[in-house]
Amino acid sequence: MKQVGKTHSNSMKKNKEQRKKIVVIGGGTGTFTVLSGLKKYPVDLTAIVTMADDGGSTGRLRDEFGVLPPGDLRQCLVALSEADLVMRKLFNHRYDRGDLKGHNFGNIFISTLEQVTGSLDKALEVAGDILNIRGRVIPVTLDKIALHAELKNGKVLHGESEFMEYQLVSKYGIKNIYLNPKGKANPKALAAIKHADLIVVGPGKLYTSILPNFLVPGVAKAFVASRAKKVYISNLMSQQGHTDNFVVSDYVNVLEACIGRKGVFNTVVYNTKKPHAQLLRKYADEGELVICGKNCAKGKFALMGTNLLAEALAKTPKVDLMRRTLIRHDSDKLAKTIMQLLG
Amino acid sequence: MKQVGKTHSNSMKKNKEQRKKIVVIGGGTGTFTVLSGLKKYPVDLTAIVTMADDGGSTGRLRDEFGVLPPGDLRQCLVALSEADLVMRKLFNHRYDRGDLKGHNFGNIFISTLEQVTGSLDKALEVAGDILNIRGRVIPVTLDKIALHAELKNGKVLHGESEFMEYQLVSKYGIKNIYLNPKGKANPKALAAIKHADLIVVGPGKLYTSILPNFLVPGVAKAFVASRAKKVYISNLMSQQGHTDNFVVSDYVNVLEACIGRKGVFNTVVYNTKKPHAQLLRKYADEGELVICGKNCAKGKFALMGTNLLAEALAKTPKVDLMRRTLIRHDSDKLAKTIMQLLG
Repeated sequence: MKQVGKTHSNSMKKNKEQRKKIVVIGGGTGTFTVLSGLKKYPVDLTAIVTMADDGGSTGRLRDEFGVLPPGDLRQCLVALSEADLVMRKLFNHRYDRGDLKGHNFGNIFISTLEQVTGSLDKALEVAGDILNIRGRVIPVTLDKIALHAELKNGKVLHGESEFMEYQLVSKYGIKNIYLNPKGKANPKALAAIKHADLIVVGPGKLYTSILPNFLVPGVAKAFVASRAKKVYISNLMSQQGHTDNFVVSDYVNVLEACIGRKGVFNTVVYNTKKPHAQLLRKYADEGELVICGKNCAKGKFALMGTNLLAEALAKTPKVDLMRRTLIRHDSDKLAKTIMQLLG
Repeated sequence: MKQVGKTHSNSMKKNKEQRKKIVVIGGGTGTFTVLSGLKKYPVDLTAIVTMADDGGSTGRLRDEFGVLPPGDLRQCLVALSEADLVMRKLFNHRYDRGDLKGHNFGNIFISTLEQVTGSLDKALEVAGDILNIRGRVIPVTLDKIALHAELKNGKVLHGESEFMEYQLVSKYGIKNIYLNPKGKANPKALAAIKHADLIVVGPGKLYTSILPNFLVPGVAKAFVASRAKKVYISNLMSQQGHTDNFVVSDYVNVLEACIGRKGVFNTVVYNTKKPHAQLLRKYADEGELVICGKNCAKGKFALMGTNLLAEALAKTPKVDLMRRTLIRHDSDKLAKTIMQLLG
């Protein structure tokens, strides 16, 4: 039988103290991609994860058991996992039938562990052991928070899943987003930010995967105060209703406004490789390619444009399945770029 | 972080070849108790587990996903587990709310692994690793089987859960039980029976946890042919509708009739310690104490009466919670008795 437990060699453990510390802030597929690439390097990895999700399997578990949202945490755990493929497949398994329909095994696993242990912290420790993860996954807060969006017509959308329905947002535009309840920052998240050598923000949905981290009181302040090099990875595609017509610097501007400090990012990384035209047409109703427009250079940040596109898939014109993820970052290219910035 | 993987010492591995082989045949709480006690001894342990359950969480998973029944397997895995308490609690966790109500985490885990790996065998291997089990858990068959009971009035009850409803059974009495489909015996189960030094049958529900193992074609024959010492552990209490007024030898007679060989058991072990009178009164509507009546000595088997009762609980008159398990075997006493028989 195969060993499921930890397999770090002693030499890796020994060098742990000297390893550079990279913190990735986000949630969702973008953070999954960054972590998947970075785990191959000898760095000390920490993922700080948004806790504002209230939709789908995660939303049902929150509603029924009063647990904290497991979905984004699960994705990060799987990204950092060095366990057998079967364990990673298990954790991402989504049920298509019966009572469990729409649920995800990993979400059920984390939520049940939280109930059994009485603590999400302990649950993540056990799940991290079973998945044999390289690094740490830290919820940005251990309190129950909820994301709200005020639109320019005064209407308030309550909860992330309501906010994700783009029609209303598209029609009126976003005036402001906030957390209520706000929660307290997880001290482990603040400590990781403080001691980081490099902090990667994004890629990911700006208003629902990235900003909710910085809206938790104390996180933005710790981020500004940290001596870490701060890198923002721009999204490949804009998101209908949320970031229509955004160029690279628009993302940075919104983010820095939320953080409350202009020029806080040292480097902004963006993709320069154009995806296949057929793919872009297929995507047209969901968003557009994020480009680095004329205004991009106005920030204090260094701009770094490079090919970050997952080529094999981007070349495939067969986009019927999983087309949402077909224009996506290549985890190895992303990680290589980030490692160059680490120096 | 704690190690979840295997922790067997090398010396234990080295001696594995020489260790005596004990096979436990059954399913349910009785088998859980036997395995929990035996795992503390340096023996080679195998549990052969009934696959006829179709009720509750197990039944729903069978119906919805077409998987094999996980419930009895889960109990055996937990019994043999040397993982942290939290893992054992997790696997036995039962949901009391929402979509998952009535489901059991361990059942979901095993069934999802079966779907992900495409094989119950592989699923049990992974689950066994995660739970760090001492020994092996083998489904008696890997085919889908169903238990049917023909009553003396000619009515046939389809499925184990229908058969478990005692009212009809109690009224008319059991004429015959059979499997349809019957399935094929798991070759691993037959091999374990063949090479065993000692085989323990029971305790457990006679018609639903014990006999369905022997009804799978090939199992009874392998059992008779095995040179192992064969031990039957009698239940503490009779089961209303199924085994009313049974004395110890009645169980053996039904079992040997099913196996098709009189005198196949070498030893029959039964409890001699009377539970607290208050407990017996509380139990009165569910069953009665199984005693060794005058007819007990008629078999070819050696009778071994001893105190097998879990004392601490049996003395407790507060039986509102979990009263079904309050009159129960003590796992250590059971194991000690079995080890004496192993010689």
